[in-house]
Amino acid sequence: MSRGQGFDVVEWGIGWSAWEEAGQSHRESVLALSNGHLGWRGNLDEGDPCGAAGTYLNGVFEEHPMPYAEDGYGYPDQGQTVINVPDGKIIRLLVDDEPFDIRTGRLRTHEQFLDFRAGVLRRVVEWTSPAGRTVRITSSRLVSLAHRSVAAVDYEVTAIDAPVEVTLLSEIVANEPLPDVHPDPRVMEPLRQPLASVGHFAGGARATLLHRTQRSGISVAVAVDHQISGARDARVDSETSPDLARTTVNTRLGAGGSIRLTKLVGHEWSDSLADAALRDRAEAAVEAAMRLGWDGIAQKQREYLDDFWSRADVRIGGSARLQQSVRFAMFQVLQSAARAEVRSIPGKGLTGAGYEGHTFWDADAFVLPVLIYTAPGAARDALLWRHATIGHARRRAEQLHLAGAAFPWRTIDGRECSGYWPAGTIAFHINADVAAAVVRYVAATGDAEFERDYGTEILVETARLWVALGRWDDRGSFHIDGVTGPDEYSALVDDNVFTNLMAQKNLRAAGAAARRHPEQSRALGVSDEEVAGWETAASALHIPFDAERGVHQQSAGFTEQERWDFDATTTAQYPLHSHFPYFDLYRKQVVKQADLVLALQFVPEAFTSDETARAFAYYEELTVRDSSLSASPQAVVAARVGHLGLAMDYLMEAATIDLDDLHDNVDDGLHIAALAGVWNALVCGFGGMRDGENGLQFAPRLTVPMSRLSFGILVEGRTLRVDVEPDATTYRLSAGAPLDLRHFGVLHTVEAGVPLELPTPALPAPSATPSQPRGRAPRDVAGE
Amino acid sequence: MSRGQGFDVVEWGIGWSAWEEAGQSHRESVLALSNGHLGWRGNLDEGDPCGAAGTYLNGVFEEHPMPYAEDGYGYPDQGQTVINVPDGKIIRLLVDDEPFDIRTGRLRTHEQFLDFRAGVLRRVVEWTSPAGRTVRITSSRLVSLAHRSVAAVDYEVTAIDAPVEVTLLSEIVANEPLPDVHPDPRVMEPLRQPLASVGHFAGGARATLLHRTQRSGISVAVAVDHQISGARDARVDSETSPDLARTTVNTRLGAGGSIRLTKLVGHEWSDSLADAALRDRAEAAVEAAMRLGWDGIAQKQREYLDDFWSRADVRIGGSARLQQSVRFAMFQVLQSAARAEVRSIPGKGLTGAGYEGHTFWDADAFVLPVLIYTAPGAARDALLWRHATIGHARRRAEQLHLAGAAFPWRTIDGRECSGYWPAGTIAFHINADVAAAVVRYVAATGDAEFERDYGTEILVETARLWVALGRWDDRGSFHIDGVTGPDEYSALVDDNVFTNLMAQKNLRAAGAAARRHPEQSRALGVSDEEVAGWETAASALHIPFDAERGVHQQSAGFTEQERWDFDATTTAQYPLHSHFPYFDLYRKQVVKQADLVLALQFVPEAFTSDETARAFAYYEELTVRDSSLSASPQAVVAARVGHLGLAMDYLMEAATIDLDDLHDNVDDGLHIAALAGVWNALVCGFGGMRDGENGLQFAPRLTVPMSRLSFGILVEGRTLRVDVEPDATTYRLSAGAPLDLRHFGVLHTVEAGVPLELPTPALPAPSATPSQPRGRAPRDVAGE
Repeated sequence: MSRGQGFDVVEWGIGWSAWEEAGQSHRESVLALSNGHLGWRGNLDEGDPCGAAGTYLNGVFEEHPMPYAEDGYGYPDQGQTVINVPDGKIIRLLVDDEPFDIRTGRLRTHEQFLDFRAGVLRRVVEWTSPAGRTVRITSSRLVSLAHRSVAAVDYEVTAIDAPVEVTLLSEIVANEPLPDVHPDPRVMEPLRQPLASVGHFAGGARATLLHRTQRSGISVAVAVDHQISGARDARVDSETSPDLARTTVNTRLGAGGSIRLTKLVGHEWSDSLADAALRDRAEAAVEAAMRLGWDGIAQKQREYLDDFWSRADVRIGGSARLQQSVRFAMFQVLQSAARAEVRSIPGKGLTGAGYEGHTFWDADAFVLPVLIYTAPGAARDALLWRHATIGHARRRAEQLHLAGAAFPWRTIDGRECSGYWPAGTIAFHINADVAAAVVRYVAATGDAEFERDYGTEILVETARLWVALGRWDDRGSFHIDGVTGPDEYSALVDDNVFTNLMAQKNLRAAGAAARRHPEQSRALGVSDEEVAGWETAASALHIPFDAERGVHQQSAGFTEQERWDFDATTTAQYPLHSHFPYFDLYRKQVVKQADLVLALQFVPEAFTSDETARAFAYYEELTVRDSSLSASPQAVVAARVGHLGLAMDYLMEAATIDLDDLHDNVDDGLHIAALAGVWNALVCGFGGMRDGENGLQFAPRLTVPMSRLSFGILVEGRTLRVDVEPDATTYRLSAGAPLDLRHFGVLHTVEAGVPLELPTPALPAPSATPSQPRGRAPRDVAGE
Repeated sequence: MSRGQGFDVVEWGIGWSAWEEAGQSHRESVLALSNGHLGWRGNLDEGDPCGAAGTYLNGVFEEHPMPYAEDGYGYPDQGQTVINVPDGKIIRLLVDDEPFDIRTGRLRTHEQFLDFRAGVLRRVVEWTSPAGRTVRITSSRLVSLAHRSVAAVDYEVTAIDAPVEVTLLSEIVANEPLPDVHPDPRVMEPLRQPLASVGHFAGGARATLLHRTQRSGISVAVAVDHQISGARDARVDSETSPDLARTTVNTRLGAGGSIRLTKLVGHEWSDSLADAALRDRAEAAVEAAMRLGWDGIAQKQREYLDDFWSRADVRIGGSARLQQSVRFAMFQVLQSAARAEVRSIPGKGLTGAGYEGHTFWDADAFVLPVLIYTAPGAARDALLWRHATIGHARRRAEQLHLAGAAFPWRTIDGRECSGYWPAGTIAFHINADVAAAVVRYVAATGDAEFERDYGTEILVETARLWVALGRWDDRGSFHIDGVTGPDEYSALVDDNVFTNLMAQKNLRAAGAAARRHPEQSRALGVSDEEVAGWETAASALHIPFDAERGVHQQSAGFTEQERWDFDATTTAQYPLHSHFPYFDLYRKQVVKQADLVLALQFVPEAFTSDETARAFAYYEELTVRDSSLSASPQAVVAARVGHLGLAMDYLMEAATIDLDDLHDNVDDGLHIAALAGVWNALVCGFGGMRDGENGLQFAPRLTVPMSRLSFGILVEGRTLRVDVEPDATTYRLSAGAPLDLRHFGVLHTVEAGVPLELPTPALPAPSATPSQPRGRAPRDVAGE
């Protein structure tokens, strides 16, 4: 069901030079702008035609009841759904009183271009109205990475061949409809008109709307001001009503004449500030932006991104498409988090209302590793958000009769919003995923202050959860029973290997952090006995292994379950969960997404290389990739075990999941974690990067069509750039102290300014390439 | 939380001589009248005060959406809830224009009595109005067992000490409110006013209301006529509006004078008949009842019950309370099914709207065994209902990608209405429970015609389900994975012993029936190979046994799970599912209700006596009895393994669950299966009765306080009465061919009219009495 493959393949952006209404929602997601605080979908300036209007502020949501046919203890009763905040991107245009609508008249040119370096979405339209007047519209739009509450539109209309009267209606529209995110009217009802007007103010070219959500009690202020040039006699006036602010600009253009309108929009929200203070903040943000003007803001945007790309750019030789895809991926990952500032990174970022705007484990497990090495400040903020929600997590653990903290499976503000506990509440690995991100962040940045003030508490409370959740058997093994791992086609299993290995690391890291920060530990009530208990449990954790088949079991007994009948399953029956009942998926060997294979990626030290190769082959035959989170770990592990062609196939799949809409759901927003997976596949897969107790390790290898790979990572403030060519890899350190790293297992030291070139050893002959379930092999990139 | 223990202890009824508003709902359930087709809760004649108004027709329900926070494949989208049909039991009384209300004026006498032999609920009230007028009201009410659509009220008012004007308002009231059966307004909305008026007709003392449900499309006709005596000058008039029929009778009584009003009500429903035809049927039923009058109908009621009690009465020596309880239980079990006629036996019978009026597996597993031996016609009807729904069951199996038929976990019309699949859809044992009831019915009655025309199809289609559901391992064992057994504190388990043993019997019975009825088998497409396949699977079914501990596992691995921490669990934390999350219950050794112990009861031949004793002791320590279905199997097995005191404690608990409201939910209706369990505990437990391939077996033993036990069962049309005394048991056969039976394992033959007295062997010393979880031991009856 892929579509929208018509994007122009260019190195530093996504271009589209056409128009058709089909695919509009998909393009709105792909062309979305965001800074992690504010998100604007790639809706057309004039508002219509529209796939799904989208203007989001990270953390602004409405509550709704959670319905259950049969209720149960501990089921969350209030859900949270991201809502549309007042939409300031709209500029409607009238040409001689005829509304500009690309579905009427004659569209001569329609080009859109998302520029990764400029951080700007540009558009050029040439249109002849039904009455025969031709205009050119050029617009540029940005969501500022430098000024988190500011977005801007630079909009110019030129009369091509005859004088025209031009009217611009620059609007802020509140309560734009949200897509039907849930079939239950009890859920949807509070989401229809979630914002109640608190005030609206207009004057000259300025306007402000103030609203409050009806149930969650969140206030939102959106303010606007305008700069006009090119038409000195333009008449300007603003008016507001509760759900609309409209600045009207009217002028007459001579043939060849043009008018340029710069719209500067400020966005603030709060669940505690007074309305007047909130209004002040939004308007002050606009004031500051007005002083900079479009050019000033655009320049700071460029500077922000130049800084990012200079350290983080991933360069690919041999495939322009892959080059574009990875930059798109990194641009969108950055956008999802750059200025979130103690807010979460939702599964869809701020590009759509999919998953109700919720944040899941993949933010910690897939997205943070990328940010930790490329934008560590954003990673720190995301972890600070987790820390800020630890009160909710403690209460949830208490409700479940556990100890410590139980982070939510899906949430906006930190409270559990999962309505299906077998794949929600009991997917406790989320806690180890958060803990692992803390450990990785501290290791990569050396941010001891963060570890002391925030990280230790997260590690301690999650360690407590594992001890409470697990049990000792009478042979001295520690088990974690009745949980769900990453694979959503299994549930309620005992001793999930991924969960247990991640819990093991969590327990040990908690002990180490507690020892490093005795004062914080004491404040948390940690005793030496408790630390010893964590370490004993960690060492005793049971890792189920099928000795007969010589492979690790995804969970206890997994390899003895019946195999799914893949040969009897038709292509139309995927994704399986839409066509088969859960119990049948759960009781059979069929894997939705990397689980044991994710353990191979995240905890490689727990497996010999032989075990890794055999486990990868075994689970390849069972993995159907009905989740967007599967291709990238499969790419990583395939590359590590030497199946480079297969790794490339998975990499290309990860790289095109959103651009080609492989899962047919990009209408609702991008898959940020899958996009992060592109970096993971390249850096951890082809680059062979590992971190952890043994420091940084690399084992870079290339395969067709990728003739070159270059990536940069930040390590304790120094940029390490790794340039991989087929026969050798060059490591370059920007500055600072020398850095130890391992290249194919051998320890080397890189000094700042001294390139270190090391040869690529010959690839040991890998075993036969594993096969996938019938019809579920990735597209063969190299073979095409 | 028990209450309502104020019932008078009498042998043949339930009496209550008091008034307090507290407990009214409980008494309405206990004093409910029903014939399986029509149910009238024990509401007061005058309608108020009222706990929950209840007038039900078996099969009349309204549909409503089933809400899910997160939807899934195969989740039912339409639910079904029993509704109140128009209520014809109401007779309001005015005394000198003052409404009779027992909360006003002075209540001098208030007595209610449910007579098990007459099948009548009687009431005597003496009341002095606020104005000082005293009247006596005597009413009798019945729901006819002889005329299934007819109910009647015989209502007499006597002026005690002064002349009074008396006005009687005899009504039919439609759309009486239902209790809030679900918290979701989307569910409740269609249930607020489920009946739309189709027509209403009045004339003289007659009236009829015609309605149709709005979504399920079921039409209901309720007609009424009246007979008046004792007041020749009474003025009578009837009027109707869409939701009300009212016949007004007005007269003046002299001191000591009285008026008697007999109200005859007919009830019909259909989802296909024309309205006029339905109205005709209801009015014709009333016509016929008018010819009989109250006395004629009451006499036929008495005759019906005399016949039932003459064969089925259970007589107890030594405990008047137990005697009352068992007759109450049998009376209510009979009422739930007597005239259901190809409709189901809901969990609450027709005594309340609890469980939304749904029917569950316990109808087949607990209620039908009682009916098969005491009212086999009603048992046949209930099985015909299952057969009538086999189309729904086939479609459900197809939806689940299985074969054969998958009967619903909970339903009114045969379609699955379970909203929680781990304890619904996958509790596949329901199918074996239905099959077992078929086999038992045919064996007990010799009804070969039923087996040929209906039973074989049920057995074949359920056998097909098991083969499709199970899997072969490579060691030649057959497994049934990923199911839920009777114990609702476990779910999604492999090889549940109860399920597997019941499936084994199902498969073998299907093979035997297919061979006996080759023509039906051919029509069902059964081949010799298929039958052989069933038998191979049955013989290969895996029964997990823990060799180390020497006990059967409730399901694979059960005995290796962590034990629930009973010592840390407080009394207030029961029932556990209201205080702990499912996953924690599921992953630990804690049993809500007899499961492995139910296997010991139902499939005793699969266990040696030593295995039985050890398994009983093992699971006693884990069973918390948070279900009303647990006490009776525990009583049965405790008695069989010789723990007679414990068996008596469980028997008494089963016998008082509803009368003493032990689960604090009798407001919503009686627990029909728990009531059936009283008979099971006495007959199968203390009587030691077993049926099956070896014919009838008994091993009767008594314990204090029960000094004598006598029960009667129907075997192929002959009544066998078993009189148990401490040292001997006497078997008496009513008529017909001699009957073979085993007494403590030894084969004997009873001839009609020739009592066979056999001694009770000494009780082998049983092992130490097992213990229960802390605070969950049954009340010690003998020790009190």
